[in-house]
Amino acid sequence: MTVRPSDPPIAISLGDPAGIGPEVIAKCWDNRSAFNLPPFVVIGDPRCVAAVWDGPIEIVTNPREADAAFDLGLPLIQLAAAKADVPGHPSVAGAHCSLDALELAVGLARSGSAAAVVTGPVTKEQLYAIGFQHPGQTEFVAERCGVSPGNVVMMLAGPSLRTVPVTTHLQLAGVPRALTSALIESRGRATLRGLQRNFGLAQPRLAVSGLNPHAGEGGTLGREEVEIIEPAIAALAAEGWLVTGPHPADTMFHARSRANYDAALCMYHDQALIPVKALHFEEAVNVTLGLPIVRTAPDHGTAFDIAGQDRADPRPMAAAIRMALECASMRLETA
Amino acid sequence: MTVRPSDPPIAISLGDPAGIGPEVIAKCWDNRSAFNLPPFVVIGDPRCVAAVWDGPIEIVTNPREADAAFDLGLPLIQLAAAKADVPGHPSVAGAHCSLDALELAVGLARSGSAAAVVTGPVTKEQLYAIGFQHPGQTEFVAERCGVSPGNVVMMLAGPSLRTVPVTTHLQLAGVPRALTSALIESRGRATLRGLQRNFGLAQPRLAVSGLNPHAGEGGTLGREEVEIIEPAIAALAAEGWLVTGPHPADTMFHARSRANYDAALCMYHDQALIPVKALHFEEAVNVTLGLPIVRTAPDHGTAFDIAGQDRADPRPMAAAIRMALECASMRLETA
Repeated sequence: MTVRPSDPPIAISLGDPAGIGPEVIAKCWDNRSAFNLPPFVVIGDPRCVAAVWDGPIEIVTNPREADAAFDLGLPLIQLAAAKADVPGHPSVAGAHCSLDALELAVGLARSGSAAAVVTGPVTKEQLYAIGFQHPGQTEFVAERCGVSPGNVVMMLAGPSLRTVPVTTHLQLAGVPRALTSALIESRGRATLRGLQRNFGLAQPRLAVSGLNPHAGEGGTLGREEVEIIEPAIAALAAEGWLVTGPHPADTMFHARSRANYDAALCMYHDQALIPVKALHFEEAVNVTLGLPIVRTAPDHGTAFDIAGQDRADPRPMAAAIRMALECASMRLETA
Repeated sequence: MTVRPSDPPIAISLGDPAGIGPEVIAKCWDNRSAFNLPPFVVIGDPRCVAAVWDGPIEIVTNPREADAAFDLGLPLIQLAAAKADVPGHPSVAGAHCSLDALELAVGLARSGSAAAVVTGPVTKEQLYAIGFQHPGQTEFVAERCGVSPGNVVMMLAGPSLRTVPVTTHLQLAGVPRALTSALIESRGRATLRGLQRNFGLAQPRLAVSGLNPHAGEGGTLGREEVEIIEPAIAALAAEGWLVTGPHPADTMFHARSRANYDAALCMYHDQALIPVKALHFEEAVNVTLGLPIVRTAPDHGTAFDIAGQDRADPRPMAAAIRMALECASMRLETA
């Protein structure tokens, strides 16, 4: 990916000021050459960054200034009501700060002033305390973009594997009854369209997992494959998509299998996340598909327990920034 | 591992004669130096091997002869009632052959004439047709060794990860109600003892997974961790074992996490098998723990669809033979 001078920068929301967001973002600027990162602009409170980092901060008022400022310091748009937190000790004021940053970042991307949004980690508990009513940042971003949350999917992407869970934060016992053909079709369609728009794949290939061991062994180890998953695959195939499965989940994630598809649609949280994190823990990126803007996030939380100790690994944030650029460039090329 | 001239060889049952067993075993002999394999002796019908391989076969009548014969050809103990199958076309006679080979291999290991047993792949369908009543080869071996199948566990082991599933071939919807603290304790204990006996770990470390996403997030995403898994971990710890968990399954299989334990005890089939096969597909070995003998197997089936086509990958069988030697040597050293 090459960055053209005229391209707007990536906007990064700082996340919870008491978490590791400020530290990993600052470390990304420190290592911008080694990590091969494009210009980006941070949105948040400069005091949160200064509390965990000694490097130069360049206050800017417009993303346009980020490109020129990027060589001098970490470009940052300061929020009016910003408030610094003590690392490791989240507060209500910090939650407001993280939500304001998210809102502005999305707005900048919607208006074209930012090429994409990368979101720093927040905790739902803190956001709920200030009246936030969405299950997570993703649903908030979807609403601000005018998209129904049901049409948005979370993809976890590493260098050699992309997966999408059909069901997400649901106890395992609830997964079988939550699965419907309509849900699998809808998630599959959103994934396939996302592979086209964000990854430039004209004819994306989707591999669908089974739910049961050995994908149910023809119905003897569970009927969900026959009754729910196969009809969904047939429906997607009838629309012209390249879809295979249901595949036994244990044999679909090794190198030779991965070469046969561009994304795997999995039935539940751990089935999708175990293989990506086992293979690509430091490089796994959350990509939200189905939005009019590009949004990525590192696949880790606020990690309050290590915040402010200079121990946080910036590689997942760097991977999220690189992937945001890749997806944004792909959209420009195919627009 | 060094092989002493006085050590008995590894006994390998040929598996279903119509499957890929004969081919991968013969290829292991072909590549015995490159694969770094100790002497082994095959039990089965030489015609099954000759049907898929042009190399030399050395008929022996006693495992003692295998060492001297190993440089000349593939040492093989011929079964009386043996019958050749056409590759890819299993038969009742072939099923008898595979069962007789398994029985003799176990007997040789029980008597000390073989250092360990490696089993070639069979299909349950074929064995059921001749009156076999066990769920699989493992339970048959357990019975022949006088061990209750409930005290035997299946471990899937690769170079950097070993996992044991608490429940195995059960539809996913049945997993939550099949889990009990007693079952987790029993499987955990068998795993820990197996790590001591087969892998020479005096103080083995066991990591126990959760069942739900994020290991239930303190009970908000499922109660099994609190009610079933944590009590089992506490009971094992009270016996003096080094046991941790319940760990979120998605973050316990990356390199840094794997360094903290010697085996992972997982709640269901795919949770245990997805990470090992994603990381180590060509080297994943089944090791049966809880037996008086060492028994390993390659982690693949008969693959009738490619049998006789010279397309089968011998690396999993080679890994199973190497691991059988390692475990057998460890038992000798610590005996």
